[in-house]
Amino acid sequence: MSKVYKPSPISGFPEYLPEIRRVEQQWIDHIRSVFESYGFCNIETPAVEEIEVLMAKGETDKEIYALSRLQADPKDKSDSRLALRFDQTVPLARYTAQHFNELVFPFKRYQIQKVWRGERPQIGREREFYQCDIDVLAVDNLPLHFDAEMPAVIYEALMGLDIGNIQIKISNRKILIGLLQTLEIKDVISTTRIIDKLDKIGEDGVRKSLSEEVGISEQNIDTLLKLSTIKTRDAAVLKTALSALNVESEVFNEGLEELCFVLDYLSFMPDGAMIADLSIVRGLDYYTGTVYETNLLDIPEFTSSVCSGGRYDDLASSYINKKLPGVGISIGLTRLFSVLLENGYIKPAAKSPADILMVLPSEDKRALAQQTAQQLRAKGYKVELYHAPQKIKKQMAYAEKKAIPFVWFPPFDDAQPHELKNMETGEQGAISVESLKL
Amino acid sequence: MSKVYKPSPISGFPEYLPEIRRVEQQWIDHIRSVFESYGFCNIETPAVEEIEVLMAKGETDKEIYALSRLQADPKDKSDSRLALRFDQTVPLARYTAQHFNELVFPFKRYQIQKVWRGERPQIGREREFYQCDIDVLAVDNLPLHFDAEMPAVIYEALMGLDIGNIQIKISNRKILIGLLQTLEIKDVISTTRIIDKLDKIGEDGVRKSLSEEVGISEQNIDTLLKLSTIKTRDAAVLKTALSALNVESEVFNEGLEELCFVLDYLSFMPDGAMIADLSIVRGLDYYTGTVYETNLLDIPEFTSSVCSGGRYDDLASSYINKKLPGVGISIGLTRLFSVLLENGYIKPAAKSPADILMVLPSEDKRALAQQTAQQLRAKGYKVELYHAPQKIKKQMAYAEKKAIPFVWFPPFDDAQPHELKNMETGEQGAISVESLKL
Repeated sequence: MSKVYKPSPISGFPEYLPEIRRVEQQWIDHIRSVFESYGFCNIETPAVEEIEVLMAKGETDKEIYALSRLQADPKDKSDSRLALRFDQTVPLARYTAQHFNELVFPFKRYQIQKVWRGERPQIGREREFYQCDIDVLAVDNLPLHFDAEMPAVIYEALMGLDIGNIQIKISNRKILIGLLQTLEIKDVISTTRIIDKLDKIGEDGVRKSLSEEVGISEQNIDTLLKLSTIKTRDAAVLKTALSALNVESEVFNEGLEELCFVLDYLSFMPDGAMIADLSIVRGLDYYTGTVYETNLLDIPEFTSSVCSGGRYDDLASSYINKKLPGVGISIGLTRLFSVLLENGYIKPAAKSPADILMVLPSEDKRALAQQTAQQLRAKGYKVELYHAPQKIKKQMAYAEKKAIPFVWFPPFDDAQPHELKNMETGEQGAISVESLKL
Repeated sequence: MSKVYKPSPISGFPEYLPEIRRVEQQWIDHIRSVFESYGFCNIETPAVEEIEVLMAKGETDKEIYALSRLQADPKDKSDSRLALRFDQTVPLARYTAQHFNELVFPFKRYQIQKVWRGERPQIGREREFYQCDIDVLAVDNLPLHFDAEMPAVIYEALMGLDIGNIQIKISNRKILIGLLQTLEIKDVISTTRIIDKLDKIGEDGVRKSLSEEVGISEQNIDTLLKLSTIKTRDAAVLKTALSALNVESEVFNEGLEELCFVLDYLSFMPDGAMIADLSIVRGLDYYTGTVYETNLLDIPEFTSSVCSGGRYDDLASSYINKKLPGVGISIGLTRLFSVLLENGYIKPAAKSPADILMVLPSEDKRALAQQTAQQLRAKGYKVELYHAPQKIKKQMAYAEKKAIPFVWFPPFDDAQPHELKNMETGEQGAISVESLKL
């Protein structure tokens, strides 16, 4: 016997058994169908981008995987500057720039592909993972309608996954930026980074950090905290609360107007489904208006935001001399799935997609069994034909092991009817292809 | 304005516009649904494998892409031995070995993922491409049923792609191997490689090569050519033709028996859909019995086999001390798609998946338009809501540009009915959510 190399799992690169993969596939199918039902078109981009494209905005803190050919011809440099994508936003920006003249704007696209980051792997932080992104890009101006539509799409997408209730938190960075300008606080990045931690370190923690790290006065911290602790889904309440801060800033007012538009648009959403939460600022520097985070209300093990995003004024300027504002949001599918799987929330599907196992009664009934299976497939059923005329008991055991819900018995004797057994209830009775309804 | 890095397409890594990607997606959906209708379950494996796994059978002629971290911590070696998969068969063997105890055998799996090879790119030979594989693996013995089922599945999968008629050519390597043993021809690899070229270099070419390169006698070449030129879908005809060669070989007879079983099983297939063609030997060394190739009969630009495979006696022995025979077949999806696209056979889909564009008549009708769109989505329609209350003409032009087939007009005046316009026929009339049937 030849030498055996026993492979072990590669840390950070998840791989599932068929019964788990099937659930992941159902998730993706559902998310995709919701995205399409709002008119988002699909694109796929190559797994690789040029390193120059990935680095166009300067160094990134993402751990990038570069490619090299094991058996490369040293003279062939055609793929020596390639690396795996670490998100789908950079590829979208590059794609939009490159195909600019052939796209119709506003360009509504979704993308469900894997991305790769060489981070230290742990549950919920893999090196290879699926992301499900929707983004809308426009030329020069992007209507606020799209900021408002994002939460509706995401809510529908996530609620179909049977993971309990979710809440989308919405804010608008302009409000905080306007306030910081008015208060003459210059260190915007540090300040917003600290406010972003409100949920984790609490009011006292934020107060301490703002004072010690940024040197903000007590009075200004009060104002910042008054703003950051506002939570409401009612545009009128939001307006009143913000008016009380007496901020005279165009940027501030613009942000308020925009956020009110979004809240009004989303007023049809169920109680608790969304809320304006002014502590949401998102770390990423390129968001310029609306920002989103999403929490799972019924999964205590998943504490971070499962789906985040926002508006950026100018996405593709690294690759094209056009102003392309966009708004987008991304479901971290694998992160969510792996945490839920690890904590027992994922109920495995059957090991086979088949609805029916077709029994093979004897070698001379093979053509009949095959033909019957074919007829059932033509009616839309998934049918696995058993592979050998073994004992019925053995064939039934196979159906059971693969959790195939129905077993079909072609007759041993042509005078007899076909029979169907429901493996869950144990019921069995005569059946015909024409009369079957599962 | 910041510096613009103008990206160019990366040779060998295809990327499509939304209207083309949609066709590719429809293809994949169809293929997947056929695979599942025969009870194949889906798996996905990581994009990467350990290099030791890819090389377990020794050096490969595939051009492998290895990974390295751009910003790697030199102490962290956890992902320094990773490379992108170059097919889906090696990952399947590794997967089956690794999860052996959790799988139910016969293990019927399909896999539709991209693979990567650093080959010199040209149309129909990309560096990143989709493969659609089905394989069945069993422990120790694999029933012949699965050899027979493969062509039925593949025929249904390919015929649904609207690419004209196809023909699956089937042979069994044991027949030729048995004959070569009987004729005492030792150089099996060179001989089969030459016979495999029969289609390309013709009988005279094969005759010349067999004589000059392998030193086979005239008489034996006659026998080999008699065998290799047999083409029939009728098991009885095949038996007669092979009997005429007077070969006394157990291996030969086994191959004949097996091929007859497959032909008998597939006798329900339409005229021309499949044929036993004894010139088919497949280059790969690991096939041991049934082998398949598939030709497109109506696409002269696609000359090679679009879908090939066969049976292997022992797939996973590099990774596990078990005998796991298998049979599998693979559709080279991207190769097929790119050649068809290049030659104008692919009709682009609409630029949007939406069935209906919902017009936004005025700002104060936004809630009504939104609500109506939501009701239509609940009925299963894909509805894009126009983003701003612009001139109706502009909204219609948008529907036209995105090829959205229907436009819905909520009333400006509540007393009026909603209206629906068929963009193809120009018909327009009153409609309600309840009465809509597209």
